Amino acid sequence: MAADLERALQSVSDGVREIVLDSPFARALAPDHLRDATLLYPASGGKHLRSALLLWSCGALGGDPQAALPAAAAVELYHTWTLAHDDIIDRDDLRRGGPSLHAAFRERAAELDAADPAHYGLSVAILAGDVQHAWAIELLAGLADRGPDPALVLRLVRDLEGPVLRAIAEGETRDLQFAHQPVEAVSEDDILAMIACKTGALFAFAAAAGGAVARGALDEDPQVAALRDFGRLAAIAFQLRDDVLGITGAEEQLGKPIGSDIREGKRTTILRRAWIHASPDEREVLSRALGRHDADPAAAAAATEVLLRLGGVEHTEALARDHLHRALQRLDALPAGRHRDLLHALAAAMMDRSR
Amino acid sequence: MAADLERALQSVSDGVREIVLDSPFARALAPDHLRDATLLYPASGGKHLRSALLLWSCGALGGDPQAALPAAAAVELYHTWTLAHDDIIDRDDLRRGGPSLHAAFRERAAELDAADPAHYGLSVAILAGDVQHAWAIELLAGLADRGPDPALVLRLVRDLEGPVLRAIAEGETRDLQFAHQPVEAVSEDDILAMIACKTGALFAFAAAAGGAVARGALDEDPQVAALRDFGRLAAIAFQLRDDVLGITGAEEQLGKPIGSDIREGKRTTILRRAWIHASPDEREVLSRALGRHDADPAAAAAATEVLLRLGGVEHTEALARDHLHRALQRLDALPAGRHRDLLHALAAAMMDRSR
Repeated sequence: MAADLERALQSVSDGVREIVLDSPFARALAPDHLRDATLLYPASGGKHLRSALLLWSCGALGGDPQAALPAAAAVELYHTWTLAHDDIIDRDDLRRGGPSLHAAFRERAAELDAADPAHYGLSVAILAGDVQHAWAIELLAGLADRGPDPALVLRLVRDLEGPVLRAIAEGETRDLQFAHQPVEAVSEDDILAMIACKTGALFAFAAAAGGAVARGALDEDPQVAALRDFGRLAAIAFQLRDDVLGITGAEEQLGKPIGSDIREGKRTTILRRAWIHASPDEREVLSRALGRHDADPAAAAAATEVLLRLGGVEHTEALARDHLHRALQRLDALPAGRHRDLLHALAAAMMDRSR
Repeated sequence: MAADLERALQSVSDGVREIVLDSPFARALAPDHLRDATLLYPASGGKHLRSALLLWSCGALGGDPQAALPAAAAVELYHTWTLAHDDIIDRDDLRRGGPSLHAAFRERAAELDAADPAHYGLSVAILAGDVQHAWAIELLAGLADRGPDPALVLRLVRDLEGPVLRAIAEGETRDLQFAHQPVEAVSEDDILAMIACKTGALFAFAAAAGGAVARGALDEDPQVAALRDFGRLAAIAFQLRDDVLGITGAEEQLGKPIGSDIREGKRTTILRRAWIHASPDEREVLSRALGRHDADPAAAAAATEVLLRLGGVEHTEALARDHLHRALQRLDALPAGRHRDLLHALAAAMMDRSR
């Protein structure tokens, strides 16, 4: 299955990249910096997990994935705008093995002799995220050209820009606010609810949208509902695994700096678990790096060692496996076949990864 | 007509505010800071010019403005997200007589004991703008509930998120880049083209969308095309007048700091006209404030005096009148009636204002 999954994912990537990079929308973007910024993440690869989820969910309910391709490209672009703005908020200078958007255009500010390169980079990244957001909607609305009923397409647009967007923004805001609260004030349920919003909502939408294109309706279809649950639960497993990699992964594999989650003060289930079992001395070690953007590598490494020693990573791995298990159970509601197998393999691979 | 215009505008404001402030979307927003931030501008008033333009354009072509109300609320919210992000980019701390979004939430960061209040304010303002953007689309897509054909509504969504958004983002980016170029390198046509993008595109969309709801079609209708031109030209006149007020207006009337356009280094037709007629000494006076965020009030006042003395303001007033004149000519293509009269009065009032 692994080789089959890889081939199928490659085919999704190729289809999405073709729609995005060859589009009239991209060609019409000006000036150069705005076009380059808007295309930086879409052109740089990415795993296209959300696109695959949408297309295979469509196939699993008997639809034609080809007809759903604009929607698959739309969820991918929707994801990239949240990355562009999130990287500003989290001050992440690395993304996908290269500079994040605001960091890349901080460098290119030199071409304009800009007085404040950091502010120029931030400005271009805000605007490019806004363009990606609009582009995603433009693509989703264009789905009607491939057959789906305009009323269903409007329903998908309203779902994405209503409840899904609210969940993403709520999750982002809570994530930001949690970092300013005492570690013990944020419960594990708070963290899991935040992840369900910030990461789960868009995965759930992608799966449900694929199913809806196949069925011609979004609501009141139990198999579409099963796909939505599957997407949400697999996304939570994915994010928990991501938090683990944020602690144990290597910079070159992750494409982002080691210790950045700790320096940003991110409230993960890893940190929470370790904190409640930590001695005063161990809390002191954690506090020297936690939420400190200027923490040196030694302080970040010492904090990481405490997180590992006190079982924070182990506990979060178990939580992730539990969510994956529940996600896979939901697939039982779908007809057996190649696309259901691909969804199964995709969710398993989202957990079993090193980047 | 003035009293009639004022009453009609009040009724537009009331209708839009009711849709926005009483909506399920607003009630579902969490946490508090995100909801408060998203509603700050929509609740604080604003002139609702774009909404009025949309509704009266609908009426002018024989449509029912009531059916178009969600679209009118949508263009207003679409405008507010561009303000939220633009105020970050332009570092404007005042808006509509109160703090701008990022400035307001820089203050409220204290409630969370946030280590970097400016970064927290900026983060919340980015997210709130993103929410307003999505909300605008959710409202526009909901237009189909009031009668318009779903295929036409999708067409409007694609127009707004495609060419209109690209124009707005292009205008914003050029505005940002112009400020880093020598004054003489940016021509008057460059500036007018930038204004047509940044301000004109959304006004043009509002007028065309109103006409399209009345007609049941967006394209290939000469009266819808006339409305689109009217919106664009009136918007350019409006923006040129805004640039004049940015130089001659008082802080309490404008709701933003005096001299902020000069300090930001904004390339206006006022600055350009004065610069090309300025002596080396006068250029020196301008340069002491231009693009200098830390310029003191005396330096900003001296620069303002040069802009006035060298005819920059007078020239821009004439340009604005010319655009208004051309806008009003386009109204001749529409059937005579109360809504056409209101559009006429609206465009005239957009020029004849002190804030």
